[in-house]
Amino acid sequence: MRTSVAIIGAGPSGLLLGQLLYRHGIDAVIIEHRSAEHVLSRIRAGVLESGTVALLHEAGVGERLARKGLVHHGIKIGDQNTLHRIDLTHYSQGRHVTVYGQTEVTRDLMEARTAWGGMSFYDASDVAIHEPDSASPYVTFVHEGSEVRIDCDYVAGCDGAHGVSRRSIPAERLSVFEHTYPFGWLGVLSETPPIDDELIYARHEQGFALCSMRSMTLSRYYIQAPRDENPEDWSDDRFWSALSARLPESAVRALTTGPSLEKSLAPLRSSVTEPMQYGRLFLVGDAAHIVPPTGAKGLNLAAGDVSVLARVLAGLYHQGRQELLKAYTPTCLERVWKSVRFSWWMTHLLHSFPEEDGFTRRIKATELKYTLDSVAGRTALAENYVGSPLADVTG
Amino acid sequence: MRTSVAIIGAGPSGLLLGQLLYRHGIDAVIIEHRSAEHVLSRIRAGVLESGTVALLHEAGVGERLARKGLVHHGIKIGDQNTLHRIDLTHYSQGRHVTVYGQTEVTRDLMEARTAWGGMSFYDASDVAIHEPDSASPYVTFVHEGSEVRIDCDYVAGCDGAHGVSRRSIPAERLSVFEHTYPFGWLGVLSETPPIDDELIYARHEQGFALCSMRSMTLSRYYIQAPRDENPEDWSDDRFWSALSARLPESAVRALTTGPSLEKSLAPLRSSVTEPMQYGRLFLVGDAAHIVPPTGAKGLNLAAGDVSVLARVLAGLYHQGRQELLKAYTPTCLERVWKSVRFSWWMTHLLHSFPEEDGFTRRIKATELKYTLDSVAGRTALAENYVGSPLADVTG
Repeated sequence: MRTSVAIIGAGPSGLLLGQLLYRHGIDAVIIEHRSAEHVLSRIRAGVLESGTVALLHEAGVGERLARKGLVHHGIKIGDQNTLHRIDLTHYSQGRHVTVYGQTEVTRDLMEARTAWGGMSFYDASDVAIHEPDSASPYVTFVHEGSEVRIDCDYVAGCDGAHGVSRRSIPAERLSVFEHTYPFGWLGVLSETPPIDDELIYARHEQGFALCSMRSMTLSRYYIQAPRDENPEDWSDDRFWSALSARLPESAVRALTTGPSLEKSLAPLRSSVTEPMQYGRLFLVGDAAHIVPPTGAKGLNLAAGDVSVLARVLAGLYHQGRQELLKAYTPTCLERVWKSVRFSWWMTHLLHSFPEEDGFTRRIKATELKYTLDSVAGRTALAENYVGSPLADVTG
Repeated sequence: MRTSVAIIGAGPSGLLLGQLLYRHGIDAVIIEHRSAEHVLSRIRAGVLESGTVALLHEAGVGERLARKGLVHHGIKIGDQNTLHRIDLTHYSQGRHVTVYGQTEVTRDLMEARTAWGGMSFYDASDVAIHEPDSASPYVTFVHEGSEVRIDCDYVAGCDGAHGVSRRSIPAERLSVFEHTYPFGWLGVLSETPPIDDELIYARHEQGFALCSMRSMTLSRYYIQAPRDENPEDWSDDRFWSALSARLPESAVRALTTGPSLEKSLAPLRSSVTEPMQYGRLFLVGDAAHIVPPTGAKGLNLAAGDVSVLARVLAGLYHQGRQELLKAYTPTCLERVWKSVRFSWWMTHLLHSFPEEDGFTRRIKATELKYTLDSVAGRTALAENYVGSPLADVTG
């Protein structure tokens, strides 16, 4: 069979790209290694920048988001026992973020694709990308016992850091910039009302903590923990008391604890792959870059890539603008590095690093104080947190 | 003999404190290990914050500074081959800096002290501070072959990082926060017109460079060099060509080279000692903290300490406000850490670190770009560079 764009991966990036291409009248097929249920079972952060929300509306999947998404105009920062608030909207010329679970985004996109009958192959095994640097790449895989071959013009690699897309590019053609952090986040999901109506990021000598939420009845809490920590060593009681110790007392008073629905440890790392394309294969989202969850940039970066790629493909198909092929990587990377730096900075500032000396701890405390106390510091934090408008590559 | 305040060290801190105390009608004696000529032979940076200039006027030594000081409303930042300008005045609500050599400040202060007949002992050997934690400390030294003892109420340690003041405090009473950098600055003084009417700080893959000046006919240039580099291995030609390679081409065109009057290597380090006092002995300026020269904070921090100490002593003598004794350290340290962080940050951002990986280099390039391109970044740079108004401890 034949399509214009083969999309590898049915996570939010692949689904969103498929939806935007549909609206541009460009034919695409999605190939996903896992089942739809498995994709929907992944629990991920859900802080959406305005640009991401606008893109979801553009994709025609904004209805439930508009109803259920929680608009946040600020965040709170705990610094030892003091709670500060950053008015995001005030310091970012009127912008805000929307809290809406990534799982919900994926579900909305899946439902929309099903509604118009978009072609997707789930549970595809042995997925392989062939001749991505030629004018006629193709993708093969096994589906329900049969070998399938899809010929296409372009391949969109939306299958994450460990997917086949990234591995299909010769290693010597890529530069990888990586950084690992000596800790992870131990996360708990609980069916309790959130501690606050805004997110709380807490810096404490015992380690970082984050109070987040999926909805007004579903809370998501994280604490910094060693990378090799076993979540099973953490009873709910132990988790709640470690979390409470790291939050300002004024915040703890409003904490409602309850049984954990899920408990997991995610190691933190930063990674950027350059370039983000190889011939007619484009790397999108996690396939090209990984950020630590601090600052919630992962999904928003992926949405940025998708936005650029959809515009590039529309320009290629509808206007014959071949020069746009070269615009994808530089356009995406400018935004990517900005967010990679911000999430690295926020991670450094708010976490305790086992190896850091007294000088570094004082420098960080002073930097956080300057960030919280000055207009310039609050502005830099706020405008990076809410994110920049998505680039228009065709402009 | 007896005085109210024994000041150890006749560098700019000690002399400025002596001058301010004189104007407050408080008796003080200065004891300096070196000769006056030696003190005046030290060549140091000379970028004065507005607060420092105001303090020199308050001390009655602003006349020549007002005539000869060069008011700078901006700095230039070279980023590889591009030259950017930061309008300091625009981004700091109207403030500026004044370029005026530290040697000139010292000379003005010495002349003023001589004019009113302030007592100073130069070439004092075997200086010792006794019982600084008692109500009646005293200082002994040998001067022109005789042992001298000065009884006093307070001792001001203005004799630098390696002076006797700091050593007179039991080590277990002090916390020292230190950081060394894996490079130094190789500096050249030349009787040539400066390359630009503002300072140029240049980041380049070959290393940092700084184009500074003492006057419109005397230039001071620096390049980053290994800590153990021997200045004698650097001919003038080698220096000028290394400097030129690190500056944007548009700037190099205006470079006038000439024979070096002086060539030296200064290693870079950051250090803060807490607390800044021990009983009735106060540590002032370099005796308590060292900053790398990036951002030119050293003399300005010392002036800040002097300003606080003069007000503390005036409050003690004229108003009997004993509680001010405890105010010196916390008041100074807030300003100190702010400048220590800023000079550390500027050093990190603009220098090449031998051990840094590709990820860190990209993060730094992105941070510099954000600093130069955003209002928040420019404001943070400008307001820290021009410095905050001096604290009024008696307020």
